[in-house]
Amino acid sequence: GNLKVSNFMFLVILGASTALQQLIQQFSQEQTCTQRYVQLLDKICMLDIVQLHLEYYSRDSEGSSLPEMKAVLAGVHISTFLSIRAFIGKLVGVTVAIVGGLSLGRYGSFVHMSGVIAHQMSYRIKFFQNIGSNYQLRLQVISAAIAAGTCCSAGSPFGGVIFALELTSTYYMMGNMWKGLLCTTAAIITYSLMHQLPFVKPPKLTDFEEYTFNHEIIFFIILGYLCARVGALFIHILTKIIFLRGKLKNPLLLNRWKWCSIVILFISIIQFPLRFLHFPERQVWNVMFNSHQISEVQNGQVWSNPNLELVLLVYCILKFIFIVSSLTLPLPNGIFAPMISFGAVFGRLFDEGIYAVVGATCVYGSVTKTVSIAIIIFEVTGQITLLVPVVIGLSVAYASSQAMTMSIFDVLLEFKN
Amino acid sequence: GNLKVSNFMFLVILGASTALQQLIQQFSQEQTCTQRYVQLLDKICMLDIVQLHLEYYSRDSEGSSLPEMKAVLAGVHISTFLSIRAFIGKLVGVTVAIVGGLSLGRYGSFVHMSGVIAHQMSYRIKFFQNIGSNYQLRLQVISAAIAAGTCCSAGSPFGGVIFALELTSTYYMMGNMWKGLLCTTAAIITYSLMHQLPFVKPPKLTDFEEYTFNHEIIFFIILGYLCARVGALFIHILTKIIFLRGKLKNPLLLNRWKWCSIVILFISIIQFPLRFLHFPERQVWNVMFNSHQISEVQNGQVWSNPNLELVLLVYCILKFIFIVSSLTLPLPNGIFAPMISFGAVFGRLFDEGIYAVVGATCVYGSVTKTVSIAIIIFEVTGQITLLVPVVIGLSVAYASSQAMTMSIFDVLLEFKN
Repeated sequence: GNLKVSNFMFLVILGASTALQQLIQQFSQEQTCTQRYVQLLDKICMLDIVQLHLEYYSRDSEGSSLPEMKAVLAGVHISTFLSIRAFIGKLVGVTVAIVGGLSLGRYGSFVHMSGVIAHQMSYRIKFFQNIGSNYQLRLQVISAAIAAGTCCSAGSPFGGVIFALELTSTYYMMGNMWKGLLCTTAAIITYSLMHQLPFVKPPKLTDFEEYTFNHEIIFFIILGYLCARVGALFIHILTKIIFLRGKLKNPLLLNRWKWCSIVILFISIIQFPLRFLHFPERQVWNVMFNSHQISEVQNGQVWSNPNLELVLLVYCILKFIFIVSSLTLPLPNGIFAPMISFGAVFGRLFDEGIYAVVGATCVYGSVTKTVSIAIIIFEVTGQITLLVPVVIGLSVAYASSQAMTMSIFDVLLEFKN
Repeated sequence: GNLKVSNFMFLVILGASTALQQLIQQFSQEQTCTQRYVQLLDKICMLDIVQLHLEYYSRDSEGSSLPEMKAVLAGVHISTFLSIRAFIGKLVGVTVAIVGGLSLGRYGSFVHMSGVIAHQMSYRIKFFQNIGSNYQLRLQVISAAIAAGTCCSAGSPFGGVIFALELTSTYYMMGNMWKGLLCTTAAIITYSLMHQLPFVKPPKLTDFEEYTFNHEIIFFIILGYLCARVGALFIHILTKIIFLRGKLKNPLLLNRWKWCSIVILFISIIQFPLRFLHFPERQVWNVMFNSHQISEVQNGQVWSNPNLELVLLVYCILKFIFIVSSLTLPLPNGIFAPMISFGAVFGRLFDEGIYAVVGATCVYGSVTKTVSIAIIIFEVTGQITLLVPVVIGLSVAYASSQAMTMSIFDVLLEFKN
């Protein structure tokens, strides 16, 4: 057989350490996040210091990391991207950024850090030297790390494996799928074990009823198309901002820490009086992905005051602006969690909870050009009853966004290089 | 954009016609199957006539078709494999074989027929000529047909897309995933619409409780390993039989219709007195994939008489023999549904319904070397609560079977050419 003991052990250790690392981090970040003692000026100072630190310490830890991971899988060699420096920079950066209240996802950072673990293990540990010295095997192991990272940030092993596969730019060697799966299994075992600890909250699952096929399907098609439009708009505006910043040569815009301060000041001032913008992303999902009325669920009252539709609409517009502006910052960032929240609220604007699930899937799917998001959403909500609406919405969104824009990963990558 | 109207329409029509074709066929086959008026001699005569008919009419409709589909995707040109003759041969063959009570799956046949529809549409209809004349595009369309076929035979759109992707031998061009998804969506819409008709029974879904992680996980690992062993044994025995038949040069074994008669006689005689072997595969799944005691569910009494464990064990052994012998026949056949039944009963031998689900996934996954089966199983049972046990079992089964044998598709293909 082609299964070496060292490869097997490598994948298991990689999966377990990814789960461990992520759970500890997620837990500590959530703990700090709930203590809302950070004042506006503190925030700006903090983020600026981190930004300066990153500038000199490791520029590789800026940004979403997923575009760079995509480049690594495509065979581009980015020398310092998978270094220990990048790991530490990312860890510090993402923690501070979340405490600072930015609208960003930790998902890309998790995946990046798993990639660093994989890379460093294969180089530094003698037992795994056969992996470090084999180019093909190294790429496979990094792909497995992406799968494990995705698995742990969303609790979705299959979604992770298939996402890692979709991220591989053009051609995927199918024979490696099991490596991702093995690594993910080690990750999900560790992850499940950790969830038994008393201080870790298990994710909340949904309780949608069985979906029966009816005329509503037309609305899912419309929602899918609208999500694709919104996704295209998002990428268009992001491109414009990055392009303009480079072209205007205005020192206020170009200087890294000035730009950082402006954006954070802007976000914080708007966010301050609006309570529905204070929730962590997971809580937004819990409110939106729900078969009940919003006013009936926990934290739901905040959303229906003064008027549910108005609050949802304002949330959508502001979230859109926040995500775009956070993405232009020289800080670690990501789009997974905020984009899902945005999509969920956007869908919920239409009608009940089913639309929130479909909206979240469609927006993320059309922005990133991945279909694995549907499997991730099934695994996050713990239900597959919404299969038919999700499939229909996603395929409409995917096909129409295919004709509109590139994937956000490709766009960001193009600007970096 | 790279989305042509004709491609779009092609995929939608392909998906819809696949769903239509399959549902009609499935329905009519189930209707004939329930009328058990067919006697033993009738059966043998019938199958022999069909076998002779196939021999002269279309040899391409023999076998499981999935290996050949794999070859087509890999770029091998099999001139008559996607002809209308093969379609009709398959249609007649599979219907008769099922009425004849053979242990075979219709899944491969469905996929084959979708492939024929795709191929013929791209050649014969002028509007789609750009697809017929473009080699790459034709392969993509056939891959989409496989996805739609899988989707409709199991009701699993995502499983279908990912299965089509796994079947692609070595490298998969990721940019084509959305074509499969679009085609599958058209298929699932048609499929869901048809399920609204009064005479079509909706599939039964399971009601497992939330799985909490505990020490049981060790048993899932053991089950996964045992399934891989059983899968390897299955492929080993199948290889031996095919090899011996070719080597012995015994006219009784080599002659197509004599061999066919012997096998059918053998299966029918054993099957006759044992009531638990008379159920269609779907009903076996309904009994096994269940959170209740077997004796409590519909049709469950048959299984616990005289003794549950004994019946399950006998079923396993006989089913194993039946599947192997059916695969050697020169008739259309397949392994999906019988293999799932076998795995479910094998898992149920251990303990409750969770083990049946894990067992079915592991056996099929290790025999065919695919992981998409897990997603198909989630979509078939309508639940994703068993995520952790299924992932763990499947990855153990997959990794250990990787070291033991080749995929059954590759084995069968090697014998054909």
